[in-house]
Amino acid sequence: MQLLKDRILTDGVVKEGNILKVDSFLNHQMDIDLINEVGKEFKKRFDHCPITKILTIEASGIGIACIAAQYFHVPVVFAKKAQSVNLDGEMYTTKVESFTHKKVYDVILSKKFLGPEDHVLLIDDFLANGCALLGLIDIVKKSGATLEGAGIVIEKGFQSGGQTIRDMGIHLESLAIIDSIADGKLTFRE
Amino acid sequence: MQLLKDRILTDGVVKEGNILKVDSFLNHQMDIDLINEVGKEFKKRFDHCPITKILTIEASGIGIACIAAQYFHVPVVFAKKAQSVNLDGEMYTTKVESFTHKKVYDVILSKKFLGPEDHVLLIDDFLANGCALLGLIDIVKKSGATLEGAGIVIEKGFQSGGQTIRDMGIHLESLAIIDSIADGKLTFRE
Repeated sequence: MQLLKDRILTDGVVKEGNILKVDSFLNHQMDIDLINEVGKEFKKRFDHCPITKILTIEASGIGIACIAAQYFHVPVVFAKKAQSVNLDGEMYTTKVESFTHKKVYDVILSKKFLGPEDHVLLIDDFLANGCALLGLIDIVKKSGATLEGAGIVIEKGFQSGGQTIRDMGIHLESLAIIDSIADGKLTFRE
Repeated sequence: MQLLKDRILTDGVVKEGNILKVDSFLNHQMDIDLINEVGKEFKKRFDHCPITKILTIEASGIGIACIAAQYFHVPVVFAKKAQSVNLDGEMYTTKVESFTHKKVYDVILSKKFLGPEDHVLLIDDFLANGCALLGLIDIVKKSGATLEGAGIVIEKGFQSGGQTIRDMGIHLESLAIIDSIADGKLTFRE
């Protein structure tokens, strides 16, 4: 998606250790016009799929999923990190390791909101090692729903998550894939 | 907002201890059509204000803020709970007590995304004791921005948060105010 790649080049910041920060438009401050274009692009790429629900994980994925859901006309369900005392009843649970926060989260989703009748599109902002996405895939599997695919805004192609997900035969669409970050310079996959 | 009150009466569930759950349409599964109407209503109620940014707090507020932001044509910024190693640079920080999770969070916002030139609308899903909203108000104060008001989807009018915020002279708009929950029955404020 050229608009997104251009924006990453303009406003993305490469920090020490070749870490890409896109917090000025994607995951701290959110440019809603850009995210609308992202939502339209996901709709275009999964237009043939009979999606009934969009599943994401808190926190950064929620806004992108909600904007995208407007084009699919389906509800969003978001998996929550750690147990909340207000989340009662039956839950699907899985574990997700966060490299950002250096810890393992319990991730939960109420069984009321996902079942065998559902056709699910996963949406998230980033795909790197794939832990969050693998957690969501595990939840979909446990629910008996059909996984239609996964839409990612930015994939770090030099980490293993994308390859792992594609090797599972899952329809993965990443709107920008970064193949390398070296000396502050990004290279996108064609 | 009648549409919202009707939905709370239809799909809200009152649990033991008179706890209202709206997780089927607002804060776990999200009905995007309803949240669009919520966004339009916030725009109507703050239409005279020169809003430049919508500020919310992760996680449930983010989707509502993003949908609402489409009507204001401004970016969303969300405050984050607890320090992330990828969030560098200068931060506004405050502390928020969560009754749901029975703990105190550090809440942070990058200084890059809020400053004296901004006119801020706060948006969140729930207002009960007001801790989250008071944390966001503290961040706005620290940033030197102008606080234009706060838009809340559901206020628990029988808890003290709403009164506290209104007593501070802040323009608070709650789209549904529940004055009591007794024996499973809700009473809305007129």
